[in-house]
Amino acid sequence: MTYMPKLGINMRSQQTSLISRIIHEKIISEDFWRHIKILYKNNNFNKLKKEDQIVVKRLYRDVKKSRKIPSSFIEKLSKTTTIAYTKWEESRKKNNFKLFSPSLEKIIELKKEYCDLINKPGHLYNSLLDDYEEGMKVEVLNAEFNNIKKKLLKLLNKITESKKYQNQKQINIRINSENQLKLCNYISSKIGLPKEKSRIDLSIHPFTTTIGNNDVRITTNIKKENTFFSIFSTIHETGHALYEIGMIKGKYKDTVISDSPSLGMHESQSRFWENMIGKNRSFCKFLYPYLTKNSPKIKNNFNLKKLYENINQVEPSLIRVQADELTYCLHIILRFDIELALITDKIYVNDLPQIWDEKIYELLHVKPKNYVEGVLQDMHWSGGNFGYFPTYAIGSIYAAQLFNKLQRDIPTVNNEIEHGNFSNIVKWLKLNIYEKGRMQNSEEIIKNICGENLNSEVYLNYLKNKYYKIYEC
Amino acid sequence: MTYMPKLGINMRSQQTSLISRIIHEKIISEDFWRHIKILYKNNNFNKLKKEDQIVVKRLYRDVKKSRKIPSSFIEKLSKTTTIAYTKWEESRKKNNFKLFSPSLEKIIELKKEYCDLINKPGHLYNSLLDDYEEGMKVEVLNAEFNNIKKKLLKLLNKITESKKYQNQKQINIRINSENQLKLCNYISSKIGLPKEKSRIDLSIHPFTTTIGNNDVRITTNIKKENTFFSIFSTIHETGHALYEIGMIKGKYKDTVISDSPSLGMHESQSRFWENMIGKNRSFCKFLYPYLTKNSPKIKNNFNLKKLYENINQVEPSLIRVQADELTYCLHIILRFDIELALITDKIYVNDLPQIWDEKIYELLHVKPKNYVEGVLQDMHWSGGNFGYFPTYAIGSIYAAQLFNKLQRDIPTVNNEIEHGNFSNIVKWLKLNIYEKGRMQNSEEIIKNICGENLNSEVYLNYLKNKYYKIYEC
Repeated sequence: MTYMPKLGINMRSQQTSLISRIIHEKIISEDFWRHIKILYKNNNFNKLKKEDQIVVKRLYRDVKKSRKIPSSFIEKLSKTTTIAYTKWEESRKKNNFKLFSPSLEKIIELKKEYCDLINKPGHLYNSLLDDYEEGMKVEVLNAEFNNIKKKLLKLLNKITESKKYQNQKQINIRINSENQLKLCNYISSKIGLPKEKSRIDLSIHPFTTTIGNNDVRITTNIKKENTFFSIFSTIHETGHALYEIGMIKGKYKDTVISDSPSLGMHESQSRFWENMIGKNRSFCKFLYPYLTKNSPKIKNNFNLKKLYENINQVEPSLIRVQADELTYCLHIILRFDIELALITDKIYVNDLPQIWDEKIYELLHVKPKNYVEGVLQDMHWSGGNFGYFPTYAIGSIYAAQLFNKLQRDIPTVNNEIEHGNFSNIVKWLKLNIYEKGRMQNSEEIIKNICGENLNSEVYLNYLKNKYYKIYEC
Repeated sequence: MTYMPKLGINMRSQQTSLISRIIHEKIISEDFWRHIKILYKNNNFNKLKKEDQIVVKRLYRDVKKSRKIPSSFIEKLSKTTTIAYTKWEESRKKNNFKLFSPSLEKIIELKKEYCDLINKPGHLYNSLLDDYEEGMKVEVLNAEFNNIKKKLLKLLNKITESKKYQNQKQINIRINSENQLKLCNYISSKIGLPKEKSRIDLSIHPFTTTIGNNDVRITTNIKKENTFFSIFSTIHETGHALYEIGMIKGKYKDTVISDSPSLGMHESQSRFWENMIGKNRSFCKFLYPYLTKNSPKIKNNFNLKKLYENINQVEPSLIRVQADELTYCLHIILRFDIELALITDKIYVNDLPQIWDEKIYELLHVKPKNYVEGVLQDMHWSGGNFGYFPTYAIGSIYAAQLFNKLQRDIPTVNNEIEHGNFSNIVKWLKLNIYEKGRMQNSEEIIKNICGENLNSEVYLNYLKNKYYKIYEC
């Protein structure tokens, strides 16, 4: 994704899938399972140290689940998604959904087969959700997401009716690639990403990858026409990377508990830094002198207030990855609703483009001009990643809950941010999240810190307070 | 070596050694061995296609050899060399040979143990040589290397006595990094390295690495004070990379015959391009207009003749990797003699620094100021790579033999080089070397093309003709 020559892709896929197969075979081997079962027996289990008990419990759960999936199924899914990805790319290029739909149908059939194999209680989709968000249930998400949809639309309505919204203009600043990259390196290193354990490279879609305990790399995309994209994607990925680098070390570093408990928890870390910290007024104050010193264009176009408002502009739009903070979760809820309907046969793949366009119009009053702006914008479905999207919204909610608690625990936090001092925030996250690893699941970790489970109300209040102030509602 | 954050090294070593262990275990597994033996039985073997017979024969040989080495020995060696490498680095930094010598002694003991396990006929060292140069024998190399030493010293003597030598000056041109890299990319792509299958990155020591059939990458080192270093190291690595990319494809692409038969053969490809082509008068003619167009400094300092002579300046020196083409093999012969003496207990590790200094003075009349310039300059011994150095000299000899034959097969070759047209050379190499893979061993391949085995006389004649002309002897 960063440096591979174009034609390297085939061999690379073969190598990756070989390693995945070897890993799966080792995980589901009889020998391994026998050892886990011996350790899990009451007599032996009770003699273990508390941490070791948790390791054995997690292993028992993970391996038992993996053993439900035969290698043949994994190979079938892998072959299907490899083709589907190519078809997805092709159908985007030719704006022809029919090139992709047969692959998507096959994937949905396989995903239903997968649900039957895993067979979690309650809604069929719970078996998919559990891969990304351990223990999460459709029943819980439906309630939270309905609440968010209803109240976010109300918020959005009030904002778009405001005078400020109706007079707002997007100002784009062009900064050259080299300076954008310098800026990204400066910010991520200020936040606390250590150079000797990380680096920033370039890729089309920004991502974080963990190559080893002390080698966690992030990427960004330098968009000449939008400097803020690289800055906020770098802050986002820095959040992921700090989490990975801060994970449980020492004796338990290569065990099953030195991991994040869920994607939602991981996303809470990236969104926390990107939105709650990075798009915070105090962060703008910290960044403003540096930005204006290095870019006369920024100095000429923005005062501090304008910069803050420009970064936080609300604008209903078509593309999830470019959505503003306020409308972002509506994009997720749309996908969640569609996935539920697909997996339970309530809608058909062939009707998807039309359903997509209707739903996005209903939520945001925007109309895709083509499939790239609509139903084909995300690659997740082509990879078979059903149940993944909700974790983005879960992460946003958790992030708001964490920020709320952080402000109570460290009342001086905004002042520290303003002075570019992030060490107390990282320490707080290390203590409360990073070093917990997967000792507990996400809900338990959040409940321990914030005193309550996933709570969309905290998130909605955070958004309301922030954006009503900006839009003077 | 190119992009890894500093602290990534530990985990990376663990990952690499894990994969090596898995590979070794698979190679020496009873199951695999049983299958090979069945295929190798007369009745079955005779029914195979010719190529399949060769695959089975090679597999039988390789696996039989690998099975002589227990996994415990590999782990012991790997642990020893990991420590030895660190000690080597430390003793270089502190210019204290004693920090490294205990590790080197252990490695030599392990290497002798290895020779006993492999147990090739003839000289003990033959078992080490065979790892890098299949079937090569000390008895053959001794004769060739003695011949080279005697005649090279005579050549060198005549050259250093020439008027031209005594008046020569080294001219260093400084070209900035960006332009050097552009130049390297231009040259390697002109020679025929395809962008969609390769790329050039930066590292301290230039190398080539094959990640997949269509992903073969090279590195160079940009030395601001010496533009020609990056150019010729790039041409050198391009030679390796073209070989890797041109290797047997199709049905046999992932088999044991889609490989080079030896390191000497691989090195013949890199040295062929670096020296016989790259440092050729015609290549200078091709490069001169491009160089002078892009660098006024080169235009001001060199005419074509001066450029050619500057590139081919002979100057006895201390460091192997920076040695000129003429004196290069003397550096190798020094190491070969020392390795033979170490492995047969004729000299002791503790006497090495003194022996080194005496020998290099005897050969080249130069005196190392410290160990980095002398006995500690190469990392090979710290990695346990005894038997590796001779392949550099073998490669140089093969390269001269190949160039000799190429000129007879394509009489217009110099004219083609002058016009930057290398496609016939690559085609010729593809036909005669690349596509032979490991169907034959090096000696067989060279004999098929050139009509004779390793022949140092051809190499010496090539050097004599070239350098007597330059130095007007």
